[in-house]
Amino acid sequence: MVTTPPVDPPDPRRGLFGEQVFALHEGGKLEMNSTAPLRDRDDLSLAYTPGVAKVCSAIAADPSLAARYTWTGRLVAVVSDGTAVLGLGDIGPHAAMPVMEGKACLFKRFGGLDAVPITLATTDVDELVETVVRLAPSFGGINLEDISAPRCFEVEARLRALLPIPVFHDDQHGTAIVVLAALRNAARLTGRSLADLRVVVSGAGAAGVACAKILVAAGIGDIAVADSRGIVQAGRTDLTPIKAELAALTNRAGLTGSVVDALAGADVFIGVSAGNVPESAVAVMAPDAIVFALANPEPEVHPEVAGRHARVVATGRSDFPNQINNVLAFPGVFRGAFDVRAVSITESMKLAAAEALAAVVADELRPDHIIPSVFDDRVAPAVAAAVSAAARAAGVARA
Amino acid sequence: MVTTPPVDPPDPRRGLFGEQVFALHEGGKLEMNSTAPLRDRDDLSLAYTPGVAKVCSAIAADPSLAARYTWTGRLVAVVSDGTAVLGLGDIGPHAAMPVMEGKACLFKRFGGLDAVPITLATTDVDELVETVVRLAPSFGGINLEDISAPRCFEVEARLRALLPIPVFHDDQHGTAIVVLAALRNAARLTGRSLADLRVVVSGAGAAGVACAKILVAAGIGDIAVADSRGIVQAGRTDLTPIKAELAALTNRAGLTGSVVDALAGADVFIGVSAGNVPESAVAVMAPDAIVFALANPEPEVHPEVAGRHARVVATGRSDFPNQINNVLAFPGVFRGAFDVRAVSITESMKLAAAEALAAVVADELRPDHIIPSVFDDRVAPAVAAAVSAAARAAGVARA
Repeated sequence: MVTTPPVDPPDPRRGLFGEQVFALHEGGKLEMNSTAPLRDRDDLSLAYTPGVAKVCSAIAADPSLAARYTWTGRLVAVVSDGTAVLGLGDIGPHAAMPVMEGKACLFKRFGGLDAVPITLATTDVDELVETVVRLAPSFGGINLEDISAPRCFEVEARLRALLPIPVFHDDQHGTAIVVLAALRNAARLTGRSLADLRVVVSGAGAAGVACAKILVAAGIGDIAVADSRGIVQAGRTDLTPIKAELAALTNRAGLTGSVVDALAGADVFIGVSAGNVPESAVAVMAPDAIVFALANPEPEVHPEVAGRHARVVATGRSDFPNQINNVLAFPGVFRGAFDVRAVSITESMKLAAAEALAAVVADELRPDHIIPSVFDDRVAPAVAAAVSAAARAAGVARA
Repeated sequence: MVTTPPVDPPDPRRGLFGEQVFALHEGGKLEMNSTAPLRDRDDLSLAYTPGVAKVCSAIAADPSLAARYTWTGRLVAVVSDGTAVLGLGDIGPHAAMPVMEGKACLFKRFGGLDAVPITLATTDVDELVETVVRLAPSFGGINLEDISAPRCFEVEARLRALLPIPVFHDDQHGTAIVVLAALRNAARLTGRSLADLRVVVSGAGAAGVACAKILVAAGIGDIAVADSRGIVQAGRTDLTPIKAELAALTNRAGLTGSVVDALAGADVFIGVSAGNVPESAVAVMAPDAIVFALANPEPEVHPEVAGRHARVVATGRSDFPNQINNVLAFPGVFRGAFDVRAVSITESMKLAAAEALAAVVADELRPDHIIPSVFDDRVAPAVAAAVSAAARAAGVARA
């Protein structure tokens, strides 16, 4: 008698079966292949000993040749400690691996870059930093992923200072770039300038902090950021250093209170937390309101509810219009940085990425189409070209 | 006007041109591919969010599922600090990468296993150990490579004690396994038992130490190991801990002096150093002498010179008969360990690998054919099966 493993009940919303998911993941989602033929002794002599020694000697004499004669010139490390994985939280390095493999698949599919998932058995900031520094000769760039706040800020900042290669915490900057691109187009569609917008950001974790910062850098009129205890403002005594920095950068209007308080008359809501926003709060936003309810899988306010009051609604989900998805940013960002051998990813490169991403659909704007589909093959080349140009302009390009 | 880069003069011995080698290495020798299709939103929902969360949750509940539902169950880390690369020595982590990429190619070509090269920016033993321990959740096994002696012994021993996955320093054990296999067949061909052989090993680095230990474990009659200062024996006051251990395990005859002194009447010479051995020393070995002159690219004694006096001659080179090459061992060893999810690679598994490797050509023995070609496709499956069986027998198999 054959017994079959128990099958999850079908999920009617997405048509997903656990059975399908586990079948797809059998053996993992990545494979490594040799691009050098190894058919005979001559092949071995070229790809391995003795021929390889010539290449090693050349790199020993000039380390910059490593980018040309090894795969590190097109290789990203997707590094996580497994502490903030999807909506699952701190599930550790083994359980985080399927997400990091998926990320590596996305790098290849959308950016044409190779990527290796590295999940680390430490959550200590010093240890994470020193481990990545030791690993760095094996890679051309570091994509940090699913590291919980506030540790993620320090890990990224220290690695950026220590390493001469791109370091990019995607949960922060990938999200921020796509949010800014979508907001550019939503503002354009509704006939407003960024400088005139009043924005409320719900959530002060990795994504919330980065969104607030990029919006400030892009010249948004005013931004109020709220965490679970309310609006981040200088009068609070419970702020972490990163939130104190936010308080200084944002909330020029001096708002206090909750997200709901801040939404009265606001032009834009950006939700990057799991908190709910009641319909009544959306109803009192300014006319032509813009709502990005990005929590996954449950948006802060259901898009159909938000749509009763807002002109433009976006979510993080693929089954509603206007999906705000990091995959619109990180493949092109790394590709653009790698194409010019950038030593870092600057703020100007992130802003350029957002502008280029917005421009892809600038002539096609509709309330349900302010951002390209993740399968729009114009996206990564446009983002990459803008990031390369910005790297040159910023003086961080080596090629 | 087009200028072309300077081309190395042709190497008449191997027909190798630098131009060919560098052309082959352009962009490196590895690529990462996704095995999951990413054609549309349904594909993304299975391979990435939200579907992947089901797999993460399952692994969080039962970490042993990581070997099944991620690629780590078939993934080797090829780890080096770049301190003992080929004959080039301490060239550092960037310059070592082409060799480690080549090793990863060999793992795929001969063992069907995926491998990722990791070259580390530290040479400190404590740092190497802690870094690999932190990386370990990302891999199913650790192949240490080109780490200089004596640090390599401590790094391997500590990692073996700390990690529940195979850890294998190939420069030690890969060489030792192939040497033992070749010696088994050479002894059989010349009608002698291992217990009757007197062996001289020249070199007490990674390979020399491991060869001596596996030969002791296999029941060789007596072994004298020599380093650059002469035969390793208890009377010497300059021995490192690992050489003191060797002195206790070997040299039952109480020899002193040089390699040349030891070779008088010896049955077997195993060279794993760069030192030269004069023809006169080979001439005074026992009848039907066996000479393995494995230094690369220049053997300790040229095989044609050795052949005037010895019955069986082997080298590390592909352009002479009987090539002693690690690639005959490590792909099958890791494959066999992975196939049964072994928690370690025991001494009995190494001995079984050598026996299986020798058996592949046991019915075809000739003086110029005591070991299979590296392209003999019977090798890796035979070694893997023997290693799996030995792992089960040793109680280290989990499947």
